[in-house]
Amino acid sequence: MKHQDLIFTNNVASHIDALVAKYSPSKVFVLVDENTQKLVLPQLSKASSAIDNASVITINAGDTNKNIESLSHIWAQLVEGGATRKSMLINLGGGVITDIGGFAGATFKRGIRFINVPTTLLSAVDAAVGGKTGINFNGFKNEIGAFCEAEAVIISTCFFASLSNEELLSGYAEMLKHGLISNADTYNRLLANDVVNINVEELLQLLEESVMVKKRVVEEDPTEKGIRRALNLGHTAGHAFESLALRRNKPIPHGYAVAWGLVVELVLSHMHLQFPSNELNRLASYIYNNYGAFAISCDDYPALIEFMRHDKKNDSANEINFTMLKNVGDIHIDCIASEEEIKTALDIYRDFMHI
Amino acid sequence: MKHQDLIFTNNVASHIDALVAKYSPSKVFVLVDENTQKLVLPQLSKASSAIDNASVITINAGDTNKNIESLSHIWAQLVEGGATRKSMLINLGGGVITDIGGFAGATFKRGIRFINVPTTLLSAVDAAVGGKTGINFNGFKNEIGAFCEAEAVIISTCFFASLSNEELLSGYAEMLKHGLISNADTYNRLLANDVVNINVEELLQLLEESVMVKKRVVEEDPTEKGIRRALNLGHTAGHAFESLALRRNKPIPHGYAVAWGLVVELVLSHMHLQFPSNELNRLASYIYNNYGAFAISCDDYPALIEFMRHDKKNDSANEINFTMLKNVGDIHIDCIASEEEIKTALDIYRDFMHI
Repeated sequence: MKHQDLIFTNNVASHIDALVAKYSPSKVFVLVDENTQKLVLPQLSKASSAIDNASVITINAGDTNKNIESLSHIWAQLVEGGATRKSMLINLGGGVITDIGGFAGATFKRGIRFINVPTTLLSAVDAAVGGKTGINFNGFKNEIGAFCEAEAVIISTCFFASLSNEELLSGYAEMLKHGLISNADTYNRLLANDVVNINVEELLQLLEESVMVKKRVVEEDPTEKGIRRALNLGHTAGHAFESLALRRNKPIPHGYAVAWGLVVELVLSHMHLQFPSNELNRLASYIYNNYGAFAISCDDYPALIEFMRHDKKNDSANEINFTMLKNVGDIHIDCIASEEEIKTALDIYRDFMHI
Repeated sequence: MKHQDLIFTNNVASHIDALVAKYSPSKVFVLVDENTQKLVLPQLSKASSAIDNASVITINAGDTNKNIESLSHIWAQLVEGGATRKSMLINLGGGVITDIGGFAGATFKRGIRFINVPTTLLSAVDAAVGGKTGINFNGFKNEIGAFCEAEAVIISTCFFASLSNEELLSGYAEMLKHGLISNADTYNRLLANDVVNINVEELLQLLEESVMVKKRVVEEDPTEKGIRRALNLGHTAGHAFESLALRRNKPIPHGYAVAWGLVVELVLSHMHLQFPSNELNRLASYIYNNYGAFAISCDDYPALIEFMRHDKKNDSANEINFTMLKNVGDIHIDCIASEEEIKTALDIYRDFMHI
């Protein structure tokens, strides 16, 4: 997999122009959704001549539009705009834009250069980095896609001023996960902070550290045959919470689901690998205080376990696979938990969440 | 890019079973079109328990069905059949099947294992090997796709008994091209043979040699940044002939178009690089005697040049890019020819073809 350039900056426009000058693409396209078209594109067009001269491709916002229809629209716009193999696509938006734009770039004429400019904390710390691209298909999340890294990712906090607290917290949950799989020092600094009140420079620094955790893991195992599964910590239970919330017609932000999923999976880590109980308590309190609780009862257990069973990361439909920790930074992938253990962990999660 | 296993055999079934045993996929799917479902699948199911137990996915035959609808159908059948990341797809058919099946395999859950079992000479020598996968889109051939090699390609002449002479000749044109870009010895043996009357063992041996030429080139440059363009010899003019034939509603086989394209591009090679005139005469006679002529007049030149100008391989819309030869095996990529030179080459092509 090619080398991915990660740029941490608060001068996005000049870095975009420098990258376009470096690669001198035959044509530049910029992919946005309705929101980034309105809120981000105008100011960036003023500051960046590359963006100002680019052909704009717009799709509807939201995860439900990360589908084959939007993908076909992007491909068609590239064809109509005369894109060649030497053209460049700039994905300007959150995770939906970098996921679908990355997949469009990976597959148009079997691959053109693309760069990601994430505009949310969640996409900056997660989706935009690491080469997982794709779309939802037939009701399954990210069912179709490719591993293909952006030529460069430009990460900046300058877009975050307009984010809601909920969006900030959603991204911060993935940073907590990166802290948990790296080392106590990084993790402790994250827990000592409060993303809603943090200053911009401190956030950019924590963000850079967090993204580098992901980058190192991805470099070691780009196509998730092994250690990349460390990044799934909190996600088996988290995705189950997300799916249950969807079924209730009350969707929850991805990062919140991961935050609650981390609690469940560190309980399992405690049961399987003696992850320290004081660390578990500390995390559970932080999550409860900042994210509140996702309410579940015993009646939800069978559905949650069914969702976990259908997780893409399971090799077989009979086993439920988790990434667990023996301690902060001490990762054990491919741990199997039984249904009974999962039920116990959900009980303890409810205790922590006071439900 | 991963290592691709090339197997030359006349015992296809046992090799399929051995590969399935080796990878022990969670489930096996076999992709066919209506033709291979009828003509090839029944006998192979009897001989191979892996094929017999596989879930069959069928699409309509023909290049016009190498589209997003067929691709979505394959993805949906994989979902419905409970495919996991550890499942395997066996593409059993000609170039359409290995192209679209390869792309489906490359993108389902961001990539599952697939093996190609080409059933035509053309796909055995060309499409099934080298990792170019994809579909047509909005009227453009192979506009969407990925570079992704099959885990293994099982190449056998046992399927060729039912091929028409036209299909055999179509595949042989790509073998001639491989001969031209390799060395005089290989090339001479190809010209000394007649694919319609060749015996099966001799053909399998020539085929193996030919596929290895492609394999070596692809290994050196999997994503066609440089030397892989050698494989485009004959294809810039050839694709233009194909497109013109389509516009006339009288499609011609791909290999025939390449055969005629080789004549045009070796004329250009003679003009630019002094490719020897005796070799040029020899090839042109062989092509005329075996493939006949594709009839064009001066009136077709502007359309042909327009088609060449829109070739995916051009970096800019202003230049027309060719692979040329100074001699057999002496390859020069990225040669630019002017419109006037192309017109002259088309004149000489018509002389060779007695039109």
